[in-house]
Amino acid sequence: MNYKFSNKVKDMKPSAIREIFKSMSDPEMISLAAGNPSAESFPYDKMASISARIFAETPVAALQYSITEGYPKLISQMAKRLKEKQGIGTDGNDVIITSGGQQGIDLTAKVLCNEGDVIICEKPSFIGALNAFRSYKVNLVGVDLEKDGINIEMLEDALKNNPKTKLIYLIPTFQNPMGICMSLEKRKKVLELAEKYDVVILEDNPYGELRFGGEDIPTIKSMDKNGRVVYCSTFSKILSAGMRVGYLCGPKEVVQKIVVVKQVNDVHTNIFFQMLCSRFMEEYDIDAHIADIRKLYKRKCDLMLTELDNRLSDKLEYTRPDGGLFIWATAKNGESGIAIAKKAVAQKVAVVPGSTFLADESEDCPSFRLNYSTPSDEQIIEGIARLSKALD
Amino acid sequence: MNYKFSNKVKDMKPSAIREIFKSMSDPEMISLAAGNPSAESFPYDKMASISARIFAETPVAALQYSITEGYPKLISQMAKRLKEKQGIGTDGNDVIITSGGQQGIDLTAKVLCNEGDVIICEKPSFIGALNAFRSYKVNLVGVDLEKDGINIEMLEDALKNNPKTKLIYLIPTFQNPMGICMSLEKRKKVLELAEKYDVVILEDNPYGELRFGGEDIPTIKSMDKNGRVVYCSTFSKILSAGMRVGYLCGPKEVVQKIVVVKQVNDVHTNIFFQMLCSRFMEEYDIDAHIADIRKLYKRKCDLMLTELDNRLSDKLEYTRPDGGLFIWATAKNGESGIAIAKKAVAQKVAVVPGSTFLADESEDCPSFRLNYSTPSDEQIIEGIARLSKALD
Repeated sequence: MNYKFSNKVKDMKPSAIREIFKSMSDPEMISLAAGNPSAESFPYDKMASISARIFAETPVAALQYSITEGYPKLISQMAKRLKEKQGIGTDGNDVIITSGGQQGIDLTAKVLCNEGDVIICEKPSFIGALNAFRSYKVNLVGVDLEKDGINIEMLEDALKNNPKTKLIYLIPTFQNPMGICMSLEKRKKVLELAEKYDVVILEDNPYGELRFGGEDIPTIKSMDKNGRVVYCSTFSKILSAGMRVGYLCGPKEVVQKIVVVKQVNDVHTNIFFQMLCSRFMEEYDIDAHIADIRKLYKRKCDLMLTELDNRLSDKLEYTRPDGGLFIWATAKNGESGIAIAKKAVAQKVAVVPGSTFLADESEDCPSFRLNYSTPSDEQIIEGIARLSKALD
Repeated sequence: MNYKFSNKVKDMKPSAIREIFKSMSDPEMISLAAGNPSAESFPYDKMASISARIFAETPVAALQYSITEGYPKLISQMAKRLKEKQGIGTDGNDVIITSGGQQGIDLTAKVLCNEGDVIICEKPSFIGALNAFRSYKVNLVGVDLEKDGINIEMLEDALKNNPKTKLIYLIPTFQNPMGICMSLEKRKKVLELAEKYDVVILEDNPYGELRFGGEDIPTIKSMDKNGRVVYCSTFSKILSAGMRVGYLCGPKEVVQKIVVVKQVNDVHTNIFFQMLCSRFMEEYDIDAHIADIRKLYKRKCDLMLTELDNRLSDKLEYTRPDGGLFIWATAKNGESGIAIAKKAVAQKVAVVPGSTFLADESEDCPSFRLNYSTPSDEQIIEGIARLSKALD
């Protein structure tokens, strides 16, 4: 039969990155294209030990239906941790456990946006969020990123010119794909603009705990006095990505609505792994574990930067991140990122063309994203060598 | 601030059943209101054993990001099982692993329905599905159920009168909440009507494996020659509900679209438990396990029916299911189901009023749903005794 898909999804295509991920089956391909945490960062033994104890001690609760909001103990722990680590108070806010950070993004858009509404996002931005917004037929408006975060004047222009704006979507810390941080001053400005133009900020912070250089900058949510900010994050980069456990902290009224749509989306997040996260934080030192991940990523990032400095500093400009998973590279000669990615694949190294991260998918740009968390040290060295050959 | 929620969700409220579930903290309350599988039905020891071996043997794959479609081996196993057990061929169809059966329902509506479109459902029907449809601002049209399934003449009238119908949502086997099965004749008729009026059928079959009496009836999907039927089901009632692993089998083109929206919804389903389901089917006899669950539910259903026969047959009519989790009871004197549920709670026994399951939430009806899988035998006996007192 001839299927009539809904207007909101009929033009949607699979994410380019996910498709690249699927085609990674060529064993000779080195992927610098992923956004995966390092396999070395998963605390297998401790997770195996907790898992055995969950089956022995609380098997029924771990395998039966649970409540949509999430495992109550984990919710309390996250509320406490958000207060301690991010300065995010729980007065007026609630925490809900989500199926990865992605679900928090998806459901926030679902509860706040009608078809034809506008979401302002950074240019470039996280493809998974952009596609989630597209799946509700929201119009995306990209605002240029500078080294210290979004261009504030252009943001205000975008807000002025798009009265149907409902959300500003931001990854202020170790931005995906650029790896940069928004300055404190700009964070304050963005919050002021959200107040002035009566819109909500969705602050996505999956990488905030992965700082290996520089100084922490307060989250926008920590400065939010009026329930203007929905904050989401995840355990994907600190415990395991495949378990799909994230969390969202937002104004009570918004979280209540998200609970209602989560209920009909997946009822609740896998309860066994919610318990596992909770017990990990209770029984082990998660901050020591995160400190190890930071060390690992600093070493990997430094290695990739050294290889880039040695081989490609004449041809490329690139960010020097203080945390997160990504480096953003731009061709000094203005060559198309798509063309570079194709040349790279011919040399058996995968990178993600910058255009993938743009609100307007038809644009090209002379940039591409590199990931240093997933490849081994040898793959980083060989990958950058191949990239250098591709750009010769 | 004053939040402006999207039109599709602004009037949505939490599911009455989930709210009842939350209020079940009163230790003296006996709940006959749940839809949970029996805690006795979870194969804890085998799951614990597999879990330990996954951590020992394939920890990276079990904790890292995976592909949206699902664990490839589990997909193959389910395709084979759907062929063997349900007569569902894979020519033209694909299988995707979903985060519970609920996600399959939610995302099918998302890819097929615009706001203002119509979904025809059984009256009464599963509240989780109705609310998922409402969350896309779809109009619901309920069609009366008879003892052998949906009223076919009324269904055709509904299709005629609602040209914007995109989907017919059905639970043909051990229907929730009524516990009845649609006859083979009606299944064929429904498929003919879907062809005639060019709509898709969403066949929800979470209870199909739980038959403890009577003869199997072919699924509608098994008779689908033209890609008219999307079929979804779950491991929730046979392995564990809390792990949130379900599956959907539908026409390739529809499944491809569902993959795209699942990608932006939760990226993929918890991969560890996908592997666990796969290894369970590989290493143990899942049919023997299901046979045990059937025996358990037959005993519990018989017990509840005996108690009803002894105490309430003068006041109530009720279904006598051949499988599934539910009995549907109707007051012979026409008393409101909401009034009965309130009287029951006063006697410390919880049932779900029938109005909860109606497309038109403002309607009342003289019925309520009873569940026999979750309560212990003692709770079934005492629960029906309390219900009898409530109806005195």
